[in-house]
Amino acid sequence: MQTHDKNTTLNDLAAITGGSVHGGGDAVVRGVCSIENPVAGHIAMALDPNKIDWSGASERPAALIVTDPVDKLDLPFLVHKNPRLVFTHALRYFNTDYEPEQGIAPNAFVAQDADVAPSASVGPFAVIDSKAQIKAGVIIGAGCYVGARTVIGEDTKLHPGVTILNDVTIGERCIFNSGVVIGGDGFGFTPTPDGNIKVPQVGTVEIGNDVELGANTCVDRATLDATRIGNDVKVDNLVQIAHNVQIGDHTRIAAQVGISGRTIIESNVVVAGKAGFQNGIVVGEGSIVGGKAGVTRHVKPGSRISGFPARDHKTALQIQAATNKLPDLIERLNKIEKQLKDKECIQ
Amino acid sequence: MQTHDKNTTLNDLAAITGGSVHGGGDAVVRGVCSIENPVAGHIAMALDPNKIDWSGASERPAALIVTDPVDKLDLPFLVHKNPRLVFTHALRYFNTDYEPEQGIAPNAFVAQDADVAPSASVGPFAVIDSKAQIKAGVIIGAGCYVGARTVIGEDTKLHPGVTILNDVTIGERCIFNSGVVIGGDGFGFTPTPDGNIKVPQVGTVEIGNDVELGANTCVDRATLDATRIGNDVKVDNLVQIAHNVQIGDHTRIAAQVGISGRTIIESNVVVAGKAGFQNGIVVGEGSIVGGKAGVTRHVKPGSRISGFPARDHKTALQIQAATNKLPDLIERLNKIEKQLKDKECIQ
Amino acid sequence: MQTHDKNTTLNDLAAITGGSVHGGGDAVVRGVCSIENPVAGHIAMALDPNKIDWSGASERPAALIVTDPVDKLDLPFLVHKNPRLVFTHALRYFNTDYEPEQGIAPNAFVAQDADVAPSASVGPFAVIDSKAQIKAGVIIGAGCYVGARTVIGEDTKLHPGVTILNDVTIGERCIFNSGVVIGGDGFGFTPTPDGNIKVPQVGTVEIGNDVELGANTCVDRATLDATRIGNDVKVDNLVQIAHNVQIGDHTRIAAQVGISGRTIIESNVVVAGKAGFQNGIVVGEGSIVGGKAGVTRHVKPGSRISGFPARDHKTALQIQAATNKLPDLIERLNKIEKQLKDKECIQ
Repeated sequence: MQTHDKNTTLNDLAAITGGSVHGGGDAVVRGVCSIENPVAGHIAMALDPNKIDWSGASERPAALIVTDPVDKLDLPFLVHKNPRLVFTHALRYFNTDYEPEQGIAPNAFVAQDADVAPSASVGPFAVIDSKAQIKAGVIIGAGCYVGARTVIGEDTKLHPGVTILNDVTIGERCIFNSGVVIGGDGFGFTPTPDGNIKVPQVGTVEIGNDVELGANTCVDRATLDATRIGNDVKVDNLVQIAHNVQIGDHTRIAAQVGISGRTIIESNVVVAGKAGFQNGIVVGEGSIVGGKAGVTRHVKPGSRISGFPARDHKTALQIQAATNKLPDLIERLNKIEKQLKDKECIQ
Repeated sequence: MQTHDKNTTLNDLAAITGGSVHGGGDAVVRGVCSIENPVAGHIAMALDPNKIDWSGASERPAALIVTDPVDKLDLPFLVHKNPRLVFTHALRYFNTDYEPEQGIAPNAFVAQDADVAPSASVGPFAVIDSKAQIKAGVIIGAGCYVGARTVIGEDTKLHPGVTILNDVTIGERCIFNSGVVIGGDGFGFTPTPDGNIKVPQVGTVEIGNDVELGANTCVDRATLDATRIGNDVKVDNLVQIAHNVQIGDHTRIAAQVGISGRTIIESNVVVAGKAGFQNGIVVGEGSIVGGKAGVTRHVKPGSRISGFPARDHKTALQIQAATNKLPDLIERLNKIEKQLKDKECIQ
Repeated sequence: MQTHDKNTTLNDLAAITGGSVHGGGDAVVRGVCSIENPVAGHIAMALDPNKIDWSGASERPAALIVTDPVDKLDLPFLVHKNPRLVFTHALRYFNTDYEPEQGIAPNAFVAQDADVAPSASVGPFAVIDSKAQIKAGVIIGAGCYVGARTVIGEDTKLHPGVTILNDVTIGERCIFNSGVVIGGDGFGFTPTPDGNIKVPQVGTVEIGNDVELGANTCVDRATLDATRIGNDVKVDNLVQIAHNVQIGDHTRIAAQVGISGRTIIESNVVVAGKAGFQNGIVVGEGSIVGGKAGVTRHVKPGSRISGFPARDHKTALQIQAATNKLPDLIERLNKIEKQLKDKECIQ
């Protein structure tokens, strides 16, 4: 990212980021800093202003983004019920990606029949294979591989070292981090007495617009038809998305999640880290899946689930609380049983 | 994959794939489609013909692969008790891998003392290091790295971006997906009061024939001797195979599994996704390990295990069922205890 | 690794590795072998000498590293209470890394304003981006990417295929295995009714000295400030280290662990495989975290925890033991309840 040399008054910033100004609207803001490391002339987000400890800091920020103004702090505030939103807009205002040079690096390899838009950028040692299409504004980092007939939509960015195999379709404004592999073979084998026979994976992958994939995440190609990721889907690092999986719009998936073959995660689902999904199930729209959950069945829209096997989150918490009492429970039962037997109430 | 322009009658196809023809043996089949997206002139596998819904489809397939013919469907059938096997053979008949050009790409780097067979293919920006041997028919994708003295057996295929370090031996007809790393350092450190001392990892990796490794899977080199993977072993994406692990023939390992150092997974074992294995244990031949299992001890041949710590699968299911009843159990115990105390049956 | 042609007497070796010599101090040792595959003239570590079975071996080692001499074995011994330490030193004495040629490979790409020390080595198809600094003795493997303004400290080694993005700082003598990604975007999105807005990740990564990262491990850049890894931290394969995580000196983290955003793992912590950490928690110095643990809260220094949610390890074992008795417990309760009801002791 690049920090721009912008000098903006708090009033002007509020017009861009949202939020109402409390005191010092003429304060000049040049960037965003963290609340732990205040920088003069920068604005910081304070989610819990009571915990601020600047005793060791030599500088103070120019202003704070808060949900409520804080009397004891002698600073201007940008007040908003959703401070993260204001913070996000401020970061986006002050920082932008470095723009690589347009055009194809002399040491990249582009097949003669590939189609690279003039405004696209192809880095050193990247390979654009036969009949691939790289649309306007696309950035292909160093050492990336784009397979034959694959299409990369406008303004999509591939960090260095991304591999997209043949016949894949990628939408616009996506960001794929380094080590992402799209279109590898799905895990399909038919066991026979003479060994495993590979099921050719002849389908593809289709990814929508505004999708972000984390470092070293894998999206396998389908056996037939396509593995599909909708629009505005955000996926963290080291996630496994198997063949023929379908993921709906706006869904967010945290690191090290695994989604088995043919499973459908509908739109607006939130999946916490390390959760796993059985193959061939449907996780309904708007569901929330807890960290490390093991989802073994269909999930109704709007569910909140956790645990393994994943259950309704409230039930899971009850079971968990009960489990904590289990050693005590056994002791109590032993005691009751002994007393009843001693009194010959029971055998 | 490449779809061949084959026009084959259902009778002729059955001779290749197995299965008995029901009706319309003269029907011409040109390819394989999925049951959800029927394509005219293609054959589809119908595992559950009663669930077929083609109300929105504009085309019908030429024939279906089924376990039993379905009266209400006016289509020819290929009938077999194992429809997946027929489906697999049909896919293999109609689709074959693209054959890259033989020879070394002008922008690959091959060490002067490396040995690349004339029928092998080495892609752009691939590196074949000193004294490596690339046998006949091998395909090395773009950007792959093959370390010094490493041997790649005949007809093995490395997708783009595979890294195989020095002194490794790979068998024939293997397929390694992008991002695979073979021969990285095993995780060996000796803690001392002055910090961790690295244990040099001076062993190697030996991989048999017909092994498939999924994207971003790691196989570490041994501390001494070799990490070994047998023949016909199939490993999914993002799997960790630590130093000195041994895996027997025909074993299948799903995504995100982790196998700790020195553990032996014998032949014909099936491991579901996200399972983890303690170091130094032996998992006996033909065992089945459930998803997310945590295997902490030796496992007898033919076992079926699940849960954490992994137990016999039936026991694990009983415990799981009992766990679901736990909140209710506590309530019942509370009630009994209270009544007995009220009656002064117990203290 | 390279095995040196060293002929050393056991007495001389003991002076290097530590340990007291029992018998045959003049025995010549040329290398280290495993106890399972003895090699003449080599020394092996025997952690459990009673289990030695050389019935199928044609050779015997020159000597053994043991905690106690074994009468029945007619061999010289190197005796030490910590045989692993002696073994480690012996391996380090007999084996050293291959030294690649110094200098920049003709087919690497180094930006004009990058600074590569003359004693550094940059492999084929590696990219050193604008204003990056590669210090003395650094080894950059084939196909690595070092981003703009990133600094790599002296004698650090990047195996082939490592990606380090812009503005990152790496210490001295680190070893990063293939597929490592450092400085990818942290997973930060602000959900709105119109979709997810990306939070720009404008922070960086700072890594200390003597850090080792396993294959395909990811370290995300911070939102603001830095994701920090201390000195002598050892991380295995496929580990996720999220944005703004802090890891203290000497900590060891096994494969497939996931650490969520802003979490602090203090110094001298040991984390077993597949453990996961909630975001924003602190794991105190010297703690030991069990395999597959799910850590959801702050952890006091010196704790030993396991399970999900992670608890004190002893409590976790008690709960686990109790869980095993659960089906039996339910049966007992049913029996008591029935008898009491039959006798009308309870309702």
